[in-house]
Amino acid sequence: MVARRNPQLNLHGELIHLLSVEGLPRELLGQILDTAGTFLSVSEREVKKVPLLRGKSVFNLFFENSTRTRTTFEIAAKRLSADVFNLDIARSSTAKGESLLDTIANLSAMHADMFVVRHGESGAPHLIAQHCAPHVHVVNAGDGRHAHPTQGLLDMYTIRHYKRDFTQLRVAVVGDIVHSRVARSDIHALAILGVPDIRAVGPKTLVPGDLAQMGVRVCHDMAEGIRDADVVIMLRLQNERMSGALLPSASEYYKTYGLTPEKLALARPDAIVMHPGPINRGVEIDSAVADGTQSVILPQVGFGIAVRMAVMSIIAGNAA
Amino acid sequence: MVARRNPQLNLHGELIHLLSVEGLPRELLGQILDTAGTFLSVSEREVKKVPLLRGKSVFNLFFENSTRTRTTFEIAAKRLSADVFNLDIARSSTAKGESLLDTIANLSAMHADMFVVRHGESGAPHLIAQHCAPHVHVVNAGDGRHAHPTQGLLDMYTIRHYKRDFTQLRVAVVGDIVHSRVARSDIHALAILGVPDIRAVGPKTLVPGDLAQMGVRVCHDMAEGIRDADVVIMLRLQNERMSGALLPSASEYYKTYGLTPEKLALARPDAIVMHPGPINRGVEIDSAVADGTQSVILPQVGFGIAVRMAVMSIIAGNAA
Amino acid sequence: MVARRNPQLNLHGELIHLLSVEGLPRELLGQILDTAGTFLSVSEREVKKVPLLRGKSVFNLFFENSTRTRTTFEIAAKRLSADVFNLDIARSSTAKGESLLDTIANLSAMHADMFVVRHGESGAPHLIAQHCAPHVHVVNAGDGRHAHPTQGLLDMYTIRHYKRDFTQLRVAVVGDIVHSRVARSDIHALAILGVPDIRAVGPKTLVPGDLAQMGVRVCHDMAEGIRDADVVIMLRLQNERMSGALLPSASEYYKTYGLTPEKLALARPDAIVMHPGPINRGVEIDSAVADGTQSVILPQVGFGIAVRMAVMSIIAGNAA
Repeated sequence: MVARRNPQLNLHGELIHLLSVEGLPRELLGQILDTAGTFLSVSEREVKKVPLLRGKSVFNLFFENSTRTRTTFEIAAKRLSADVFNLDIARSSTAKGESLLDTIANLSAMHADMFVVRHGESGAPHLIAQHCAPHVHVVNAGDGRHAHPTQGLLDMYTIRHYKRDFTQLRVAVVGDIVHSRVARSDIHALAILGVPDIRAVGPKTLVPGDLAQMGVRVCHDMAEGIRDADVVIMLRLQNERMSGALLPSASEYYKTYGLTPEKLALARPDAIVMHPGPINRGVEIDSAVADGTQSVILPQVGFGIAVRMAVMSIIAGNAA
Repeated sequence: MVARRNPQLNLHGELIHLLSVEGLPRELLGQILDTAGTFLSVSEREVKKVPLLRGKSVFNLFFENSTRTRTTFEIAAKRLSADVFNLDIARSSTAKGESLLDTIANLSAMHADMFVVRHGESGAPHLIAQHCAPHVHVVNAGDGRHAHPTQGLLDMYTIRHYKRDFTQLRVAVVGDIVHSRVARSDIHALAILGVPDIRAVGPKTLVPGDLAQMGVRVCHDMAEGIRDADVVIMLRLQNERMSGALLPSASEYYKTYGLTPEKLALARPDAIVMHPGPINRGVEIDSAVADGTQSVILPQVGFGIAVRMAVMSIIAGNAA
Repeated sequence: MVARRNPQLNLHGELIHLLSVEGLPRELLGQILDTAGTFLSVSEREVKKVPLLRGKSVFNLFFENSTRTRTTFEIAAKRLSADVFNLDIARSSTAKGESLLDTIANLSAMHADMFVVRHGESGAPHLIAQHCAPHVHVVNAGDGRHAHPTQGLLDMYTIRHYKRDFTQLRVAVVGDIVHSRVARSDIHALAILGVPDIRAVGPKTLVPGDLAQMGVRVCHDMAEGIRDADVVIMLRLQNERMSGALLPSASEYYKTYGLTPEKLALARPDAIVMHPGPINRGVEIDSAVADGTQSVILPQVGFGIAVRMAVMSIIAGNAA
């Protein structure tokens, strides 16, 4: 049996698409984070631009709406001097019955250089990467419940920024893990980077049992999950989970798993609190925590631009 | 009692946000109009760009839809070489229940340089200016019934262009003054610039009585209001006013307050006619007037680009 | 009787608007195709930009939605270094009751350089070209059933690329010709370029009888229409035609006029197959043909960018 090559890497092991954190070597993650560090200063300059992608055409293909994530990619691409095209996919030819792959083939024929893809179906960015022309690079901006690799990477950047060494950390991921592509990408990245103690914290209905196989400790008890943690990553509770079969109610959830100052006191005194945003104040997180001294939620946003610039510039520089 | 500092100005009295014309010193208005004059030629060049905002990130945050106004700001920003991001706010995180200030904090963390804000609530741009990071500048592109300062300033530019000296003028503002942020910004600007005779003309239901306190003459009689005027500023009659309690009917309104050639003949022979657009032909203005020799409605549009370029470049150059 | 000047040409016979292929001299078509050839390489460069329209303001005015066509014009304009403004016309002032010509006058006053117009009404781009300021150039991106000249020109570019000499060709245009602005533009262009054998193929309900006056052979029999053709241009069958009075059903249509490998075998062995996209697989074209070796559907897309760059750069260089 021949090992199947990771479709994200070329024959030299260089990144040509970013589809998932899973299966990427630790060194590559380190390269992305190091490169992001050099871009962080670009966003703080008077002239926030470098010419690395000048004349390149980056297409934002958001089959699922997300103004915020789309905007972060648009900012990253424009600060790299690319031309950015936001396609209103809901109104476009796919709406006329054109297949996804025909749409992709057409955009490739327009000499696209990069597709940033968000899609409700897990695996859609992989499918696109497999079928698009060799000159096109694909970045997964979130697919179904599968992966959100740039969020995973910006979370790692944030942790490294504040904690330096991954190999001594206790990291708790709290909330609706079963539906969260952020959680999946975070857990894969934490494992690759050597975090020895990863905990998935939440109610039984929202934490998959098979996480234990990945070396993750499943905690349905919030106090146990958060105790002595160096990093607490809170997940957004989607509105549609707040009622119905999976959860009794939002207030019930908050009482048990919402991050209050009292619960945060169980973690290490220098623990940082993260959240992918947008936050639901009083649902998964208390305002006193979200706005408190341990919160690094806003710095995460700035790191996210730098990480996306890093990913885009790295893959654009590597030939298929 | 200590005088509260104008939130639009830094400690040196320099403009860092444009929220309202009210309370700005006459010299500052003069500086904006002078700067706009230098930009007017930029829009007439072969290459309509200057590099003053190169590498800056300008965000259009239109909580209330206005393709036209948004476009004028986008043009102004791009002619200053800024990167412009149009956020589809209706679809964005605010729609997911995120608070206005959380949205603003997130965009600030992306190293935004400027927010151009239109909002249905009076005071929203002030709130944003108070809470955003010190490196961010805010321009009010219209908030509720409160203010539309760039429209006010472009109207002043227009008047100065055609009439030179403000201190000898009779200016009539005609129409639905009570609901008009344009009227409020115009009246403040006219008063600051020393116009001795300002008239607010319209039916009792649409002209607030307390304008007299601002030195404005309230005229419910159109002939009296327009007689010998040097400048006639017509306001747009919103569709929702044309029926219901405030007005008997659109045709009734037109008969009394619609600007026809006959009524315009009461003004000075060299009077100019202005309108913020879009015009309602046959409702507040007759086509013969809108397209006539005294109309400066289209030149206003071009001046508007120059004034917005001036405001953006001035505030971007001043540190909080 | 004085000959009416072609509104697309200035007094020197140079192209200042592109409204319709009809009435353009053969030399001008040749100039556009030659210029497109020089731009084709730009899209294949590392830096896909030339500074020909730097500082120019191009407005996409799509009164009828078409994400794909709008995107091709946006790409073309940005690769020429123009600033591009996409106006959400459905939400704009026209929706507030402003007339088309008032909207155009306002945008002209913002120092627009070019309008790219798609409109459901035939003739709307002509109307705009007649009324806009002399410094503005208009490109028709499809109006009603009238014309889609850039599609017609890119089709000619494609034919010339593969077949070199127009004067020996047999070209079949197949499908819903009566409703197709693409077919009209193609037929005019083919006639101007000297194609001696042009065939319009389709059912009686979808092929106008008066085409014969234009020197076009009308074929209701598919085998007759396609036999020995050098070029087969398939048209998209609009969903709304697939049922109702004009056609019995989509499957019936496919059986008779759908391009299968068997039917294509009637054409010359080196015949090329074209389609303006998006294709309806299994309705007007079989996947084996669309993806087969004779299909040039995807190359058409890339040629389309080059042709639009050519049109935009040529008209921008010619003064009214």
